[in-house]
Amino acid sequence: MSSLLPNLRIVLVAPRNPLNIGAAARAMSNFGFTELRVVNPYEVAFRDARSAVGASPVLLSAKECSSVAEAVADCSLVIGTTAVRHRQLQQPLKLLADGAVAIKKRLAHSPVALLFGSEKWGLSNDALSHCHWAMHIPTRKEHQSLNLGQAVAICLYDLARTKRLKATPADGKNAESETVERITQTLLAALRESEYINPKTGQLAEEKLRRMIRRMRIESADAEVFLGMLHKITWKLGQNK
Amino acid sequence: MSSLLPNLRIVLVAPRNPLNIGAAARAMSNFGFTELRVVNPYEVAFRDARSAVGASPVLLSAKECSSVAEAVADCSLVIGTTAVRHRQLQQPLKLLADGAVAIKKRLAHSPVALLFGSEKWGLSNDALSHCHWAMHIPTRKEHQSLNLGQAVAICLYDLARTKRLKATPADGKNAESETVERITQTLLAALRESEYINPKTGQLAEEKLRRMIRRMRIESADAEVFLGMLHKITWKLGQNK
Repeated sequence: MSSLLPNLRIVLVAPRNPLNIGAAARAMSNFGFTELRVVNPYEVAFRDARSAVGASPVLLSAKECSSVAEAVADCSLVIGTTAVRHRQLQQPLKLLADGAVAIKKRLAHSPVALLFGSEKWGLSNDALSHCHWAMHIPTRKEHQSLNLGQAVAICLYDLARTKRLKATPADGKNAESETVERITQTLLAALRESEYINPKTGQLAEEKLRRMIRRMRIESADAEVFLGMLHKITWKLGQNK
Repeated sequence: MSSLLPNLRIVLVAPRNPLNIGAAARAMSNFGFTELRVVNPYEVAFRDARSAVGASPVLLSAKECSSVAEAVADCSLVIGTTAVRHRQLQQPLKLLADGAVAIKKRLAHSPVALLFGSEKWGLSNDALSHCHWAMHIPTRKEHQSLNLGQAVAICLYDLARTKRLKATPADGKNAESETVERITQTLLAALRESEYINPKTGQLAEEKLRRMIRRMRIESADAEVFLGMLHKITWKLGQNK
């Protein structure tokens, strides 16, 4: 298990409560995880959490990011946690017990990001569009979602719980999120140049495209080649205007 | 599982923080457990927790007891949770994953109590003396114990975990070869138009591209969308000549 620990990035997106940020960091510390990233936190909350008595080293070394894309840039697998209450998910959904197995396999050889949304709204569709799949802790349907600190603790417990799984060979190494996002943006540019995308529905198109590209599971080596192709196409489209 | 839920008593012994009491009650509610008992709480904390906005029905109906003996009186199995840091335990110790199996067996036919100690001291030796065995959530030895609300949430998650989870929704159906080949050919056309492909090495490029597109494992629905994008891009490239 120990070699899996540094590969997991816990990403808190827009957290608002310093106690929850502190509780998430403490749970990480308890289970031996160290990489905490915080995207657009409510500034007062983040400052309060860091300055609390007994703030953990995990929290003190947490990286603050200005976007989900930045927070998951070095990860080849990105998972969004969700209470699945109020939305139609666009991604495959796994229960924690199954998801944890898949995450551990990947952690054996490359970084994985696990995203948690804000206490009030969970993850936005935009944040979820960066995810390969969504994960859910099964609770009673009629109840409100779990407290953020508890949700993080439960996920980490399940990840730390079962015995270490062997790395799967065979499959090529998946591309890192940063490269996948560059593919998304370059294809987006080509689609705009070629007027495939209607400017009025641009935002929706971007999220749809982001999800589609992530479903494709592009391998590292292919990703660079594909990106080169798209750059050339986009350049040509621009040149011909 | 549902028949096991009313048989579990969660017993908080001498809790001092209203947020922790609230978090424990909320986790119970999330996982469908209802019987909360509180032994000698710090009075202000218990009152604050109950009067908090959104206090759960579990908390409002919690029973206040003056002793551990009273709180576990109707139970045939009593388990104390412990961080096992500072003491020589007098009872057998089980890890949560194993303990949960034993607890579920008993819950099927009679009440079981699960005790949690105060935030600062854990369970006293006196409280532990009421227990048949002790249970521990495995965490890193060098770290402080888990937050009370998180410890309760993790135990209840493991108790509520079902044996075999339903299969996750299958991944989308992979695109048929015919469609994949049309994608290959359309992308190839775009790459020729944009001069990405050197005509001298065209054949090799085509084979490489074909293999690459197949490694991507594009789903059926996505394949049609992607093909539409590539058609539009290729058309635009041709138009601009």
